[in-house]
Amino acid sequence: MKITRRAEFSASHMCRNPRLSVEENRAAYGEAASPHGHGHNYTLEVTVDGQPDPVTGMVMDLKHLKEVIQEAVIEPMDHRFLNYEVPPFDRVIPTTENIVLEIWSRLEPRLRMDNARLDTVRVYETDDLFVEYSGEAGR
Amino acid sequence: MKITRRAEFSASHMCRNPRLSVEENRAAYGEAASPHGHGHNYTLEVTVDGQPDPVTGMVMDLKHLKEVIQEAVIEPMDHRFLNYEVPPFDRVIPTTENIVLEIWSRLEPRLRMDNARLDTVRVYETDDLFVEYSGEAGR
Amino acid sequence: MKITRRAEFSASHMCRNPRLSVEENRAAYGEAASPHGHGHNYTLEVTVDGQPDPVTGMVMDLKHLKEVIQEAVIEPMDHRFLNYEVPPFDRVIPTTENIVLEIWSRLEPRLRMDNARLDTVRVYETDDLFVEYSGEAGR
Amino acid sequence: MKITRRAEFSASHMCRNPRLSVEENRAAYGEAASPHGHGHNYTLEVTVDGQPDPVTGMVMDLKHLKEVIQEAVIEPMDHRFLNYEVPPFDRVIPTTENIVLEIWSRLEPRLRMDNARLDTVRVYETDDLFVEYSGEAGR
Amino acid sequence: MKITRRAEFSASHMCRNPRLSVEENRAAYGEAASPHGHGHNYTLEVTVDGQPDPVTGMVMDLKHLKEVIQEAVIEPMDHRFLNYEVPPFDRVIPTTENIVLEIWSRLEPRLRMDNARLDTVRVYETDDLFVEYSGEAGR
Amino acid sequence: MKITRRAEFSASHMCRNPRLSVEENRAAYGEAASPHGHGHNYTLEVTVDGQPDPVTGMVMDLKHLKEVIQEAVIEPMDHRFLNYEVPPFDRVIPTTENIVLEIWSRLEPRLRMDNARLDTVRVYETDDLFVEYSGEAGR
Repeated sequence: MKITRRAEFSASHMCRNPRLSVEENRAAYGEAASPHGHGHNYTLEVTVDGQPDPVTGMVMDLKHLKEVIQEAVIEPMDHRFLNYEVPPFDRVIPTTENIVLEIWSRLEPRLRMDNARLDTVRVYETDDLFVEYSGEAGR
Repeated sequence: MKITRRAEFSASHMCRNPRLSVEENRAAYGEAASPHGHGHNYTLEVTVDGQPDPVTGMVMDLKHLKEVIQEAVIEPMDHRFLNYEVPPFDRVIPTTENIVLEIWSRLEPRLRMDNARLDTVRVYETDDLFVEYSGEAGR
Repeated sequence: MKITRRAEFSASHMCRNPRLSVEENRAAYGEAASPHGHGHNYTLEVTVDGQPDPVTGMVMDLKHLKEVIQEAVIEPMDHRFLNYEVPPFDRVIPTTENIVLEIWSRLEPRLRMDNARLDTVRVYETDDLFVEYSGEAGR
Repeated sequence: MKITRRAEFSASHMCRNPRLSVEENRAAYGEAASPHGHGHNYTLEVTVDGQPDPVTGMVMDLKHLKEVIQEAVIEPMDHRFLNYEVPPFDRVIPTTENIVLEIWSRLEPRLRMDNARLDTVRVYETDDLFVEYSGEAGR
Repeated sequence: MKITRRAEFSASHMCRNPRLSVEENRAAYGEAASPHGHGHNYTLEVTVDGQPDPVTGMVMDLKHLKEVIQEAVIEPMDHRFLNYEVPPFDRVIPTTENIVLEIWSRLEPRLRMDNARLDTVRVYETDDLFVEYSGEAGR
Repeated sequence: MKITRRAEFSASHMCRNPRLSVEENRAAYGEAASPHGHGHNYTLEVTVDGQPDPVTGMVMDLKHLKEVIQEAVIEPMDHRFLNYEVPPFDRVIPTTENIVLEIWSRLEPRLRMDNARLDTVRVYETDDLFVEYSGEAGR
């Protein structure tokens, strides 16, 4: 049984790899390579997979899930310029793929419960583009 | 191949477990434990998995799918107070998890077809919170 | 210049007029007359009309607007059964029209500012039905 | 890791099987059997599954993905009457199921990359009805 | 006080003026001039302006509003090719502007009530393009 | 008759007034005063008011409207840090109010037509916050 909670944060990012030339960065990332950065309203969906508790009928305390997301992702990332203010994005390029992997690594240890675990992290960069990760690489 | 149909119903619910004290109920369910109940516009997504019929090019008759959802879920649950008017929620706490399981058990027997079967039931309590079940527990 | 902030609350309501018979209530309100009530995720849009402050470039402090909405509407109405828990809905039928008028009367005095005033209150009962009021009756 | 890009196209279609009688077509497809056809704003979601490139931090060049979708699906299908203007729908009935299969067969060969492949094609006929295919039949 | 109800219909249309040449039609309407037509999921919003009835607390019977929209617009237009099947679009070009005017002329006489009248008709051709009319031309 | 077209752009901004102290900026703009800036997916709705042309049945050429929006707003603002890259936001604080006023001043002269004029500019900073301007101040 899967429970998904959605949250939002607004952040700036800039996609440029110091090992690539200006032209290569432009070729790889297009407009997103602009040195001033640009921003998005990111929408985050966190999915937990587990068994409902027979007493409460709930997989997990949703207030707790909300607090974990708030503390681990929203507070440190909302209204920030990721490259300058949110490690490891000072050295890891904040593509949506890498943002998803970072959120996974922040949430996964905090969502190991007796009857449930983190299943998927999905991030919408815009309504028309989203990335999701279910930990497959680690299996 | 998966076909999903969406439907909506508005209902009230109240989350309180008679085996728990008032304080324990409040701790487990927060505001949802209020004895007067509160309500939601629930959005239901029913997904059927199957092979398209070679003559019609359709997995199933969508009008039939709509009617099954209407009869088994929307008519009995729409505009109801689940705890008082929709068994088994007089004795099963109507958390979103339990609502999903009840809808699964109502739809699954009616959607066993030669070339298709119920795949997933997803219920959105709000835009920011949804639960889904694909019958894993029964496997 | 108009600024609109959106918020949500979940509540139950029951539409029945004690001056009408059971049959008349059913004729007037349909399913909404059910004595157990039912619920919705109401979406509220509050629009303020004003001139931007020349120093800040803002019509009003958006955090203040959010707090006013939170205190006057969301906290008293969210997760409540309106008829039983939120006056004046013990004696005023909580149709969406009356909910809008009540929200207007709660917000309007708190949003009288030097350079701005409440312009419109809009409430969505569902995605397909909404009511709005701009104080025309009071003009 | 899965990347999904969304696109839209508007098209007409008509669902009638020449091997069925007028009555049988009406029974199978309902209003969609009307000989004049009718139309939809179809929403397409294309999901690619792959590993992020260690240098760029991206699974694939999103501009390239957009161009492939544009060339293979949007340009030939947008603003068309599928039965008359978009083969194979002159002989394959353009149910949403068959539209999904056709889009899969157009995209899959163009999205075979070293580190990624087409994972899922989903098409929304309306907000309340969508079909998806992940190539299961070919496994 | 304004009440808005939303409904949807799927239809095909073709924008070509017999008084214009093929090239002029293409210049005026672009892809929409294609002789086979194309289709949309149109979303309709009908707004009624009125005073709530002091007994019921409602501006009008919402079931009645739904039925009027159903009979006057949805039934005759849904799943139709407007140019061929829905007069006056055999001689009036079914641009979204003209569709809005036609819906206004169908609804306005049926929504003249003691305490309310039709206020606005809005039609979304897609999520990104909509037209509305409030009868200004007739004032 | 009003026609609205929607478009999107992603940009960074930073709200700080050089005439205010760090503390005053923080008090006025909250998190938005962060010196690194942050970003949004802004949604823009441009509404034109006019009379349909009796020959074409259209208020204006929608392709032209799209091009004007593209040239005047999307190209110069999309994927930019407004304060650093888009005058006058080097000296005018890019609050949503000021962004709306700037877009109005860019579009209004280009949308003065014989039968139509710019009616409203609306910008959504997020789904829950939007600002609109209809030129009232200039009347």
